Amino acid sequence: MATVKLIQYEEASPEVKAVFDDIKAARKVADVNNFWKALANQPENLKRVWQNVKEVMGNGEIDSMTKEMIYIAVSIVNNCDYCIHTHTAAAQSKGMTEGQHQELLAVIALASTTNAFANGLKVPVDEQFLK
Amino acid sequence: MATVKLIQYEEASPEVKAVFDDIKAARKVADVNNFWKALANQPENLKRVWQNVKEVMGNGEIDSMTKEMIYIAVSIVNNCDYCIHTHTAAAQSKGMTEGQHQELLAVIALASTTNAFANGLKVPVDEQFLK
Amino acid sequence: MATVKLIQYEEASPEVKAVFDDIKAARKVADVNNFWKALANQPENLKRVWQNVKEVMGNGEIDSMTKEMIYIAVSIVNNCDYCIHTHTAAAQSKGMTEGQHQELLAVIALASTTNAFANGLKVPVDEQFLK
Amino acid sequence: MATVKLIQYEEASPEVKAVFDDIKAARKVADVNNFWKALANQPENLKRVWQNVKEVMGNGEIDSMTKEMIYIAVSIVNNCDYCIHTHTAAAQSKGMTEGQHQELLAVIALASTTNAFANGLKVPVDEQFLK
Amino acid sequence: MATVKLIQYEEASPEVKAVFDDIKAARKVADVNNFWKALANQPENLKRVWQNVKEVMGNGEIDSMTKEMIYIAVSIVNNCDYCIHTHTAAAQSKGMTEGQHQELLAVIALASTTNAFANGLKVPVDEQFLK
Amino acid sequence: MATVKLIQYEEASPEVKAVFDDIKAARKVADVNNFWKALANQPENLKRVWQNVKEVMGNGEIDSMTKEMIYIAVSIVNNCDYCIHTHTAAAQSKGMTEGQHQELLAVIALASTTNAFANGLKVPVDEQFLK
Repeated sequence: MATVKLIQYEEASPEVKAVFDDIKAARKVADVNNFWKALANQPENLKRVWQNVKEVMGNGEIDSMTKEMIYIAVSIVNNCDYCIHTHTAAAQSKGMTEGQHQELLAVIALASTTNAFANGLKVPVDEQFLK
Repeated sequence: MATVKLIQYEEASPEVKAVFDDIKAARKVADVNNFWKALANQPENLKRVWQNVKEVMGNGEIDSMTKEMIYIAVSIVNNCDYCIHTHTAAAQSKGMTEGQHQELLAVIALASTTNAFANGLKVPVDEQFLK
Repeated sequence: MATVKLIQYEEASPEVKAVFDDIKAARKVADVNNFWKALANQPENLKRVWQNVKEVMGNGEIDSMTKEMIYIAVSIVNNCDYCIHTHTAAAQSKGMTEGQHQELLAVIALASTTNAFANGLKVPVDEQFLK
Repeated sequence: MATVKLIQYEEASPEVKAVFDDIKAARKVADVNNFWKALANQPENLKRVWQNVKEVMGNGEIDSMTKEMIYIAVSIVNNCDYCIHTHTAAAQSKGMTEGQHQELLAVIALASTTNAFANGLKVPVDEQFLK
Repeated sequence: MATVKLIQYEEASPEVKAVFDDIKAARKVADVNNFWKALANQPENLKRVWQNVKEVMGNGEIDSMTKEMIYIAVSIVNNCDYCIHTHTAAAQSKGMTEGQHQELLAVIALASTTNAFANGLKVPVDEQFLK
Repeated sequence: MATVKLIQYEEASPEVKAVFDDIKAARKVADVNNFWKALANQPENLKRVWQNVKEVMGNGEIDSMTKEMIYIAVSIVNNCDYCIHTHTAAAQSKGMTEGQHQELLAVIALASTTNAFANGLKVPVDEQFLK
């Protein structure tokens, strides 16, 4: 498997260009990240994933910086190197402080520890949480 | 492997009772959760894990409700049934709304999707994120 | 998907019976575990997996009780409920003490924590470990 | 996300220096690994993780070389590149032979296989393991 | 965390009913699975996930039975009990034979083994696969 | 941990050479992949893993190209970089088209999303799937 081809804006089909334009406008950036250039090899995947991201990651009842921190948590447990890099940058651009980043990592690390104990000991769920 | 023995307060050693008392005071609850009763089979593990939880999960630069949501994210990816139950309850008791819970799940699910694409396509990290 | 059919010795084909007999003789047990009865739905899988287990899990440079503890570690991280139960029982039957079990869980839980920090911080491997 | 800053001893705060000194003394090494230099960006995380490692990884009812092998098992399943490197080196420095390393990998690989079968077939836990 | 509320058709909002109707028509079933009833607590999640499923899981260059087998593979590695059950049933309804199911499990189990060896040994990618 | 030594054919023992010859003949290639050269440090592991691969990965009730796609799915979820590379190449050499590759990734990504929702919501398995 060769490295994935990254589709640049200039060479993209009109269909792909439209998505790239939408990403650039929504994020106020000059160019899209490699993730989107890689997905663009299959325009249906590109459109669907971007549609999902737009719907899910904006401000809602959870603010978008917190959403990025949750994204980082998932990406660390799944060990997605690319995603850790880009979503840490995204969280920082949305205001995550160095102190918040360190606390985030501490929570992720702690949860990993207690997950292991709870699964390893087969702790039964407390009655009051099953009602 | 039999189900883990849950150490009840009445039968606990003074060493274990001291930790249970500290948990009950910190959380203002009448009894500790099964997780702690299971850990109490080995007082050193009980003390160490509780010490870690106290240090990490309180209010800091990230508020404690948000920390519970991050905990849920890790627990879902690790598929720790016990932890999903208890930390969802904890987040709710700290104010997580139904709408926030749904958004939390949507972010976790979305991150899982893009993690798979990024790892599967071997997307190279963008230059600007490596500086 | 219905629960998997468990093939009992009495109804097994001669091919399956031969493997069951080998397992019972090797382990000095009156009947095989459900795992083998489930695998027996496909005799090729049964034979291959048992062959692998026989080759790998016996005493070698690592004693078989320690191998069971390593098995438990993998099963907890993969969260295989069945495997945690059976291999904890196996380790205990080979001499794992309650104290060793507790230390085992503590190591697994600690490793899960530092894995999260190392992956989350993208710590570069030290030069001396790459030589 | 830029590569994490590695805090060198010379530039460290007295608080961080104290932990580094403790690690160096305990391990009889001239300098600490990158993991600790990375954690040192947040002294509370550094102190807590080191305290946990000291408590868990020493000789107890399980010898410390075996603990390193268990650590490797967890790190391979979680695919923590950094941790595989450093704990394989640690296990070797504590006496793990090449033969033991190969058997360790064989057990981890076998457990991964049977975990998949047991989860995929939804094998019910045998009665005798639930008592 | 109480068990998730399952929204029944009769009590659903018009928005949710429309999605349920679409699922029932597409799948020619009298009622939707619990998964959809659980998602219906948040109509936006319900609509988005169903839209994704419709786009991805139909016949394309990969036939839909094979897609269900791939789904099972992912669900076993992630250990999603609900998903293993429902997608095994779906694959069977689309023609997966017992023999194919057994081969599927064998491939998943084998891949899990070689994944562990490759990650544990840090095998470098062959030159020819990087071109 | 130094990079694993790759055993070349010329320096291999007769026992290892025999396995390498078998792999080269079965696959009609001039040299074996690094994976096998790494495994060859322990001839028992080499022989056992190759035996398993031969038994499982050939044409059966599932054709071998489809088996490679299933292999890729497992490897992406486990994030085995080496395995993603080599099995994507293998699938392509057996006829996987670019379109099929893209659909494969879309199914894996979708399954990862719904796995997260099902585990996070603790959706109960539908009655009809438990019969």
